[in-house]
Amino acid sequence: MIKHIISHLKSQTPLIHCITNYVTVNDVANVLLACGGSPIMADDIQEVAEITSICSATVINIGTLNTRTIDAMLTAGKKANELGHITVLDPVGAGATKLRTETTLRLLNEIQFSVIKGNISEIKTIYQGSGTTKGVDADISDIVTENNIDEAIALAKELSKKTNAVIAITGVIDIIADSKKAYIIKNGHAMMSKITGTGCMLTAMIAAYCASNTNDILEATAAAVSAMGLCGEMAYLQTQKANAGTSSFRMHLIDAISKLDDETLTGGCNIEIRE
Amino acid sequence: MIKHIISHLKSQTPLIHCITNYVTVNDVANVLLACGGSPIMADDIQEVAEITSICSATVINIGTLNTRTIDAMLTAGKKANELGHITVLDPVGAGATKLRTETTLRLLNEIQFSVIKGNISEIKTIYQGSGTTKGVDADISDIVTENNIDEAIALAKELSKKTNAVIAITGVIDIIADSKKAYIIKNGHAMMSKITGTGCMLTAMIAAYCASNTNDILEATAAAVSAMGLCGEMAYLQTQKANAGTSSFRMHLIDAISKLDDETLTGGCNIEIRE
Amino acid sequence: MIKHIISHLKSQTPLIHCITNYVTVNDVANVLLACGGSPIMADDIQEVAEITSICSATVINIGTLNTRTIDAMLTAGKKANELGHITVLDPVGAGATKLRTETTLRLLNEIQFSVIKGNISEIKTIYQGSGTTKGVDADISDIVTENNIDEAIALAKELSKKTNAVIAITGVIDIIADSKKAYIIKNGHAMMSKITGTGCMLTAMIAAYCASNTNDILEATAAAVSAMGLCGEMAYLQTQKANAGTSSFRMHLIDAISKLDDETLTGGCNIEIRE
Repeated sequence: MIKHIISHLKSQTPLIHCITNYVTVNDVANVLLACGGSPIMADDIQEVAEITSICSATVINIGTLNTRTIDAMLTAGKKANELGHITVLDPVGAGATKLRTETTLRLLNEIQFSVIKGNISEIKTIYQGSGTTKGVDADISDIVTENNIDEAIALAKELSKKTNAVIAITGVIDIIADSKKAYIIKNGHAMMSKITGTGCMLTAMIAAYCASNTNDILEATAAAVSAMGLCGEMAYLQTQKANAGTSSFRMHLIDAISKLDDETLTGGCNIEIRE
Repeated sequence: MIKHIISHLKSQTPLIHCITNYVTVNDVANVLLACGGSPIMADDIQEVAEITSICSATVINIGTLNTRTIDAMLTAGKKANELGHITVLDPVGAGATKLRTETTLRLLNEIQFSVIKGNISEIKTIYQGSGTTKGVDADISDIVTENNIDEAIALAKELSKKTNAVIAITGVIDIIADSKKAYIIKNGHAMMSKITGTGCMLTAMIAAYCASNTNDILEATAAAVSAMGLCGEMAYLQTQKANAGTSSFRMHLIDAISKLDDETLTGGCNIEIRE
Repeated sequence: MIKHIISHLKSQTPLIHCITNYVTVNDVANVLLACGGSPIMADDIQEVAEITSICSATVINIGTLNTRTIDAMLTAGKKANELGHITVLDPVGAGATKLRTETTLRLLNEIQFSVIKGNISEIKTIYQGSGTTKGVDADISDIVTENNIDEAIALAKELSKKTNAVIAITGVIDIIADSKKAYIIKNGHAMMSKITGTGCMLTAMIAAYCASNTNDILEATAAAVSAMGLCGEMAYLQTQKANAGTSSFRMHLIDAISKLDDETLTGGCNIEIRE
């Protein structure tokens, strides 16, 4: 793990420009602040280039995609590329509708992303250029297990080669890969899927981790994914202790993110390298 | 009460397509997950029909109505009708502005809803085809009490006959009726009106309860209304015990929804039938 | 302090029309309910004038400005002026982009605001008619300290003269001024900047405090600023006691707002007058 990765982040407070969905936008902003970054949400075509210019990273999340903001996404992404900023794509629901699939492919065609993060169905859709995702969750038939993990790693590596981006496939087992190297992460808890927004929060955290640790995007992404999972584990323990429910879990999750330090992450991360 | 109504819901995890307002959308998504469903929010005209097609129910909530999404609401609603899906309307603020009243009437004209849920002022506006609601809360002059409840029941039954939908009038006393039968529900707590979104959350819960219990929409709606009220009562006790405030109440409310089971609902529901 | 300022608010439950950003809109609605007001969010040009007409105050917050809603802001503000309602402007990020600066100046040109609330960088942008804010936080070079406070007070008084509005400059030290008199407020806690939305929540609270205490807008604004800061202090103590994080802090903040009464505010406010 990158030494002092969270200290780097907290000492730099990188500004992260998010063009994201209106369902989880508040959680995304709070998680960016909690992990040590600072959020700016702006999606009007007239100002996105200026906003991108004062930030360190740009997050594009198509969770509630609408045609008004597609051009703003393209403008922000191209500006970020021009400035050499970190760019992270979360293709929420790619494969579920023609609009989402086509927009995802167009974004990938016109923007060079640093990291692409999705569930296995979304990543397959990108790889194949088409898809049949049922909604915003991964199809059961696609889910990564110990049995098919080698195929999933191969997919991630190939897609990384094709897109020149770090690929993060999230699920019960997470796979983070570039064209040569893959990290397998087994942090996390099932309760994370019982609240909305853990995926969107993670995407923003990846941007903050990468923006403050630009010398190793692959490892910074793996660290962010592990950190989110570890905080999920800690939040579950707190929730269980109080015999509480999903809303308490959400609070404990963001609390844990705000309190996480390098030592706790190093002690709790469950990361394995497969080269 | 439908036997095993919550078990049905939890075993089916119905996908619910919500075109809803941006004030409470995060709560709505979290409540759908908490009660056992799964949310998808999408409101762009180019994709709503496809999203509706992969869901079991469609929720239309006009809380922050804007002209961009009206056509998306109509498209989604018609598609849901075509597929025989559950459709639930929450005409937030109908009667408060011309745009809301006219849009509500247009939606009712072009879409067959399974359930229409509103406060007494909104329901009166629909019945009369015009209205003078003061904002998004019921007018004091309209509020349902023991003294005027028979009139309100008659109104609900007549509107159900006219619209062929189950009518849910929410307030201190809730009335759920079709053209023949009415349920009177006395669950709930005053603190529910001190947080935003309990009405929107309930609308989404009704959709999830109905989508997984399609053989009795009237009773599924009554169960959802009673469940939300009962969780409000339990959340109040938790809040009071900790001498806490409205934000804790919101957390305890969603916690209670996530932990509610058939036994607790059967034991705590306060439902009376008036045929 | 205005005697019984919170009792006035709670007895009147003023309706507040908010055209605000989608990042913190849910918190804004919950804080309005918590403090004793009632929120209505509406931003479609076709209905904003009607919504404004049934409210007591109008809040315009440009946090996620988009060109669709600028005309709605102008229409709502002019209607509020026509009716003599309280109007509050939060020029979030003015100075950061051309769109935000120009929109802010246009709003100020066409609408008479009762209160303008911003951080020192935003207020300087308004005063100078241009700016170079880095994002939505105040520039470090601008921050108000004991050393430059007299300049900041002079700026606030001059801008108040120019705009005929009460000016609220928020930061570690808050300055609330009209053309003759200034209040210096030292309530608050650093953790307030670790969650999103405290500024937006405060803007809405100012509107509610002013709408129910119209005879002294300056003092009502100072009271709201002090109240928010005091609740931040109390929330910090709760958070610290539980060794919790930023999400717990947010909950305790809104809890404290919902429980605040005149006695606690009078006892805890840290306000100094500089004439």
